[in-house]
Amino acid sequence: MKFVSYTGSDGIGPRVGALLKSIDMPQECIVDLERAYALYLEDVVADPFALQIAAIRIPQDLKALIAGGPLSITAAREALAHVSQALGDAGYGRLLAARVLQPSSVAKLHAPIARPGKIIAIGANYSGHIAEGRDAGVLRELPAYPVAFLKMPSAVIGPDDMIVRSRHTEELDYEIELSMVIGKRCRDVPAANWRDVVMGFTIVNDVSMRDLIVQEKPTGVVFQGKNLDTTCPMGPCVVTEDEIADPGSLEIALRVNGQTRQHDNTENMIFTCGQIIEYWSSRLTLEPGDILTTGTTSGVAGFSKRFPERLLKHGDVVEAEIESIGILRNSVIDDESRPAHLHIA
Amino acid sequence: MKFVSYTGSDGIGPRVGALLKSIDMPQECIVDLERAYALYLEDVVADPFALQIAAIRIPQDLKALIAGGPLSITAAREALAHVSQALGDAGYGRLLAARVLQPSSVAKLHAPIARPGKIIAIGANYSGHIAEGRDAGVLRELPAYPVAFLKMPSAVIGPDDMIVRSRHTEELDYEIELSMVIGKRCRDVPAANWRDVVMGFTIVNDVSMRDLIVQEKPTGVVFQGKNLDTTCPMGPCVVTEDEIADPGSLEIALRVNGQTRQHDNTENMIFTCGQIIEYWSSRLTLEPGDILTTGTTSGVAGFSKRFPERLLKHGDVVEAEIESIGILRNSVIDDESRPAHLHIA
Repeated sequence: MKFVSYTGSDGIGPRVGALLKSIDMPQECIVDLERAYALYLEDVVADPFALQIAAIRIPQDLKALIAGGPLSITAAREALAHVSQALGDAGYGRLLAARVLQPSSVAKLHAPIARPGKIIAIGANYSGHIAEGRDAGVLRELPAYPVAFLKMPSAVIGPDDMIVRSRHTEELDYEIELSMVIGKRCRDVPAANWRDVVMGFTIVNDVSMRDLIVQEKPTGVVFQGKNLDTTCPMGPCVVTEDEIADPGSLEIALRVNGQTRQHDNTENMIFTCGQIIEYWSSRLTLEPGDILTTGTTSGVAGFSKRFPERLLKHGDVVEAEIESIGILRNSVIDDESRPAHLHIA
Repeated sequence: MKFVSYTGSDGIGPRVGALLKSIDMPQECIVDLERAYALYLEDVVADPFALQIAAIRIPQDLKALIAGGPLSITAAREALAHVSQALGDAGYGRLLAARVLQPSSVAKLHAPIARPGKIIAIGANYSGHIAEGRDAGVLRELPAYPVAFLKMPSAVIGPDDMIVRSRHTEELDYEIELSMVIGKRCRDVPAANWRDVVMGFTIVNDVSMRDLIVQEKPTGVVFQGKNLDTTCPMGPCVVTEDEIADPGSLEIALRVNGQTRQHDNTENMIFTCGQIIEYWSSRLTLEPGDILTTGTTSGVAGFSKRFPERLLKHGDVVEAEIESIGILRNSVIDDESRPAHLHIA
């Protein structure tokens, strides 16, 4: 199942949906899970309070839905299955009319988790990235544990938002990463049990300001270089873990203006998803909707300005793609050029 | 006005309240703001939907109430004023019976903001703390800007919770800090206008693991040393900015088992609250409920193990006090000793 957060063509949102492709529809659609669950309750359970129950069980914020636990996740699955079945019964037109369905192409996608409780970002987890960092004198040796820093929830943007190059940086860079979404409050989880607490996966582009990272180095922190506004694009969906047979065997690639810049396979991660969960849950509590993003692969632009022509600039289109999840596509604009509606009083 | 988050003696909570002292009551009480606002709407406006409106206007999460903006803040003030007036009319017994009031002594206080969107922690903002850091070879020079790191929302605990010493640290230390609570989504705020966006102040004890900070230093990040569970005690209340004539002139002190360890005045901050707001809002968007904590003063235990006998240990009681805000009091327990209800599956 692929959860999304979206605003429909009617301007109503954000709402929680699921992506659906079906031979009974002409195009990929988003299933509105609240409306679909109400339909299920009416059609199957004959629940006189279907609308009210659906409004509570399927909150319009995916973090809240995940925190709703197995009852909410099961409700979402029942809703999706019911829609699939109704489609088989030639229900496409009726479902469209009831706004239970709408084509993905007319919806605006938001970050699936708009404001995660925390975003733990592993810093160096592919040997290729460490090697290029070593060449640049930035990353030194293989880490003994999954070293991480925090990214800021308010830096999160969605697939249809723009990466704004701040006036404070001249070296804006990209970093595609496979990201885990926590499904359950937990501590001390053994690596082998990671599926008990990871409800799904998404893509994060860990946008980085190489010049700010260098400037901050003497202060001993990693903060501004990873955390200006719009530097955590996330999406396009959260795919549930049951659809990922092995998160350590996924093709991962990033393109800028159609040109491949990063391409690897998650089999080359130094620490597996399970090991990352074990390490960090032994230190601190993970909560529903938390993100653990697993580090990027080689091919970044900015280490030691080796490829200055590859740094992100106004007008660039960045596509981060991971097998079985999808494509997270964002364009880049300069701070001075951002539309008025993106300015904040 | 002093906002608190609390659970009443009836076990119902967390709820949002306000601290109140009055000559018409035998002891300090918490005003339940939702119930008090409903009473105001009934008594003054004769609103037939008083309960429903109060339930929406006064959410039971202070971050949500702050995000509710001036309408919610004004409602809270009207509610508090109405209770004060009712007390003058000999309403104490009636207000207690209606659970609009209850003695502070019987309530459990939570962190006023249970899960801030982000916690930006200034690292070195008092000359005394920088000097002791320099002596220990940790902090080097006066910062050119308010250097900060992130603390994790899930590390936040309240005044009636316990600081748990993790099995991963032997050097648990305290750091009292004056903290600003953001009231309004904003960017690019001039220092002089800080009151437009800071809705109030609270106290944070920036509990630190000195050994982990040292261990992490070669990796170039500050994370574990500042972010294990329970290392961000916050409270006891959020006092609104109108009650703080000058945040740069407040006595600030921390005691362990009654013995003063830190004592200074916020006049010795290097960067003022206004300067901190100006700097960080020029870099990134601040949102309602975000915390900017302004750094600690001299007297910490752990720098270079200068005062190993002062490091926090099982059974210690830490009191962090700031003039006009209150006392944030937490006891310390070892991980192995924490009660079963603090264990997480």
